[in-house]
Amino acid sequence: MRFTSEQRFDDGVLEREFTLGEVPGILWTRGSAPAPLILLGHPGGLHKMYPRLVARGRHCAAEGFAAATIELPGSGERPRSAAAEEARADLRRALAAGEPVDDEIVERLVLPLVEKAVPEWRAVLDVLLSLPEIGGPVGYAGGVIAIGLRLAVVEPRISAALLFAGSFVPRAMFEEARQVTIPLHVLLQWDDEGNDRQLALDLFDAFGSTEKTLHANLGGHTGVPQFEGDAGNRFFARHLK
Amino acid sequence: MRFTSEQRFDDGVLEREFTLGEVPGILWTRGSAPAPLILLGHPGGLHKMYPRLVARGRHCAAEGFAAATIELPGSGERPRSAAAEEARADLRRALAAGEPVDDEIVERLVLPLVEKAVPEWRAVLDVLLSLPEIGGPVGYAGGVIAIGLRLAVVEPRISAALLFAGSFVPRAMFEEARQVTIPLHVLLQWDDEGNDRQLALDLFDAFGSTEKTLHANLGGHTGVPQFEGDAGNRFFARHLK
Repeated sequence: MRFTSEQRFDDGVLEREFTLGEVPGILWTRGSAPAPLILLGHPGGLHKMYPRLVARGRHCAAEGFAAATIELPGSGERPRSAAAEEARADLRRALAAGEPVDDEIVERLVLPLVEKAVPEWRAVLDVLLSLPEIGGPVGYAGGVIAIGLRLAVVEPRISAALLFAGSFVPRAMFEEARQVTIPLHVLLQWDDEGNDRQLALDLFDAFGSTEKTLHANLGGHTGVPQFEGDAGNRFFARHLK
Repeated sequence: MRFTSEQRFDDGVLEREFTLGEVPGILWTRGSAPAPLILLGHPGGLHKMYPRLVARGRHCAAEGFAAATIELPGSGERPRSAAAEEARADLRRALAAGEPVDDEIVERLVLPLVEKAVPEWRAVLDVLLSLPEIGGPVGYAGGVIAIGLRLAVVEPRISAALLFAGSFVPRAMFEEARQVTIPLHVLLQWDDEGNDRQLALDLFDAFGSTEKTLHANLGGHTGVPQFEGDAGNRFFARHLK
């Protein structure tokens, strides 16, 4: 891992940009004592997402967590995947036409992304956990929900996950959802224009965890209320501290 | 209103039992400054429900609210309604047989209860708001959800409601749900053995409020997690303070 830049905010939070191989990312920490770590998922495009990510990263750090995020495969400055772009265009077309979204489109879009992103997250996790200011345990917070789902199944170092149900999950992954056993906090925007509410409710039902909570709020994809940030931190405080 | 007994707990919370006409109730306050008020709904049977009600009442009072509850018509020491008992038996029979619950049974059980309980709540509210230690604004918290729904529509002094979606609501009241405009916080137990999950989700969808949040947790009717008490108080702190 190579740190490429750093800045310190007024509140003492240190932000460092890094790259690991071809994967760029950002780390937020405060202080030098080993802190539990929250991995921040997002839909791709670190620069575009930066305002929201830095707010969440600083909020985490202010509450005693370290937080980190990485760029998704095929997003931001990373090489595009022609197949993924095509699947995304097909998805947009179906949504714009008000048609039901064919599971086959979702599979083409999401499965290759999950296959590529999850090992990258795990490699970053290996390095982050070797830093003295990061102690674990580890949580995952955010979309893409299919990535969080897979991480929750395959990565035993992740102890709790806050999943934003704001993107499609292929039906093929519902069986996997039953294997998730860590505590879950699922966020759903009730009127998300780019998501399927019933699919999200079915997925919440499918998760095998004995502690799982769904927070659904009125509003569209980007309308998650401010107070859910606090609720998320309280969830992680219960499970990571 | 006649106060019939009082006790003060170690934490300074004062509990007073009262009657207003034929309706018994309990009031929890701390200090003499005018506090916002939370009305605590419950499924009936003040004595049976006391352990849970006193915990909620004291929790509210500790956070700077006054809290009050009253006995439901036909419950506890109040005269039984033969029609309601029959409807309740029909509901239990349908649930025990695993049959879908006929809306006609729900209407027979719930509508007369709502018609009787809501004016009683409003009469108690008149008196409570005249006490110097209660200032308003007012919230309603708890089941029976149909009572909370009706109160939210007809009682303009109620500014926010936390509704426990743990009991059936007749479809006839869904139109009424669209008239609710106050902020709502709805609690749903995902595996509630005596409730219909889809009906609860449809009802959440029907509420007309522009701020509404659903918290669904794994578990049965009585399994609401401890941390939801804090979440509820934070909801009321946002809207009543």
